[in-house]
Amino acid sequence: MTDPATDALWPGESTEAARRLLLAAVDSFARRGYHATTTRDIATAAGMSPAALYIHYPSKAALLAEISRTGHRATLELVERAERTGADPVERMRGLAESFTVWHARGHTVGRIVNHELHALPEEDFAAVAELRIRIEEAVLRIIADGVAAGLFRVPDQRTAARAVTSLGIDVSRWYTERSSESPEELGRRYGQLVLRMLGAPAERIGD
Amino acid sequence: MTDPATDALWPGESTEAARRLLLAAVDSFARRGYHATTTRDIATAAGMSPAALYIHYPSKAALLAEISRTGHRATLELVERAERTGADPVERMRGLAESFTVWHARGHTVGRIVNHELHALPEEDFAAVAELRIRIEEAVLRIIADGVAAGLFRVPDQRTAARAVTSLGIDVSRWYTERSSESPEELGRRYGQLVLRMLGAPAERIGD
Repeated sequence: MTDPATDALWPGESTEAARRLLLAAVDSFARRGYHATTTRDIATAAGMSPAALYIHYPSKAALLAEISRTGHRATLELVERAERTGADPVERMRGLAESFTVWHARGHTVGRIVNHELHALPEEDFAAVAELRIRIEEAVLRIIADGVAAGLFRVPDQRTAARAVTSLGIDVSRWYTERSSESPEELGRRYGQLVLRMLGAPAERIGD
Repeated sequence: MTDPATDALWPGESTEAARRLLLAAVDSFARRGYHATTTRDIATAAGMSPAALYIHYPSKAALLAEISRTGHRATLELVERAERTGADPVERMRGLAESFTVWHARGHTVGRIVNHELHALPEEDFAAVAELRIRIEEAVLRIIADGVAAGLFRVPDQRTAARAVTSLGIDVSRWYTERSSESPEELGRRYGQLVLRMLGAPAERIGD
């Protein structure tokens, strides 16, 4: 059930039992929705007793919060990496749109949970995740502003454009499945071009 | 709780009791998610007994199916209307992107349910709704193909572009709230321009 992207979210950092619980929670939330999942469901899916679950996480909300924080932190890292590596704003935005798309296609199960169950988070966890989301959008915004300043993008409303770029990528996790005809990488390449065109990049730089 | 867009979905066609149940179901699904909602929750929210609910709908799945069919039929009508009215492919696509965006912003509560609880639909209802979704995407695809044929759009991969146009609009219902800084109409106008740019429409036709 676990896709490789989910698996990669918790490498060595957690104990084996915590890892199993996180994977079981992702699986249960994806299958039944957060509200209809009980801690017993998660414990059972992880092959543990509910009491054993409570040793690691005080509640299912704590599991959701951990999944959400990890997912958002990984997304922010990927966005900031794209920001550092591109040669100019066009290549930085291409890299960002491509890797953001690949991430949401390959990790569509976790992507769906962290983006659609946001309002189920306890207040403090919501605030922490909201902060990460703002930083992700600001990184997108910085590349757009750089591109406009360099005369490479034409964007009348930078905030709406940044929102559209992230929205396109996030929504991939809603519709993408392993049965989709394009690989995550191929979709990423095409979305990178669509995003550059949307931002008014020079036609000869788009590469389609 | 009920937004005007939800209210407008069931005008005179249903009985008053059926209408009340549909509105209560939308409200309950939005609040708790489909799986965690019981028919008793819905009946209570509608001020009825569970037995009275069953007179109108055999199950909560039947309520979800009715909400989903109505929402998708209304979306298809709106898309086909845009297809008939625009002067040329640029104006047809602008009209489509604008009204699609306004619809998902104003009706974000229903939009979220019909797009995110799709897999909870019973098999036959899923097939009916999947058919409506294909027809919506085909209408988008026809305008793109017309625009390419007329030399007005530049779109290397028309299917991916059509998917991106609908995805951008659908995802509005995930993030839009009444507290958003832009009105649905203002957002629609900006998204119309972003979509035209994404499809490579001539710069002087975009109007931004």
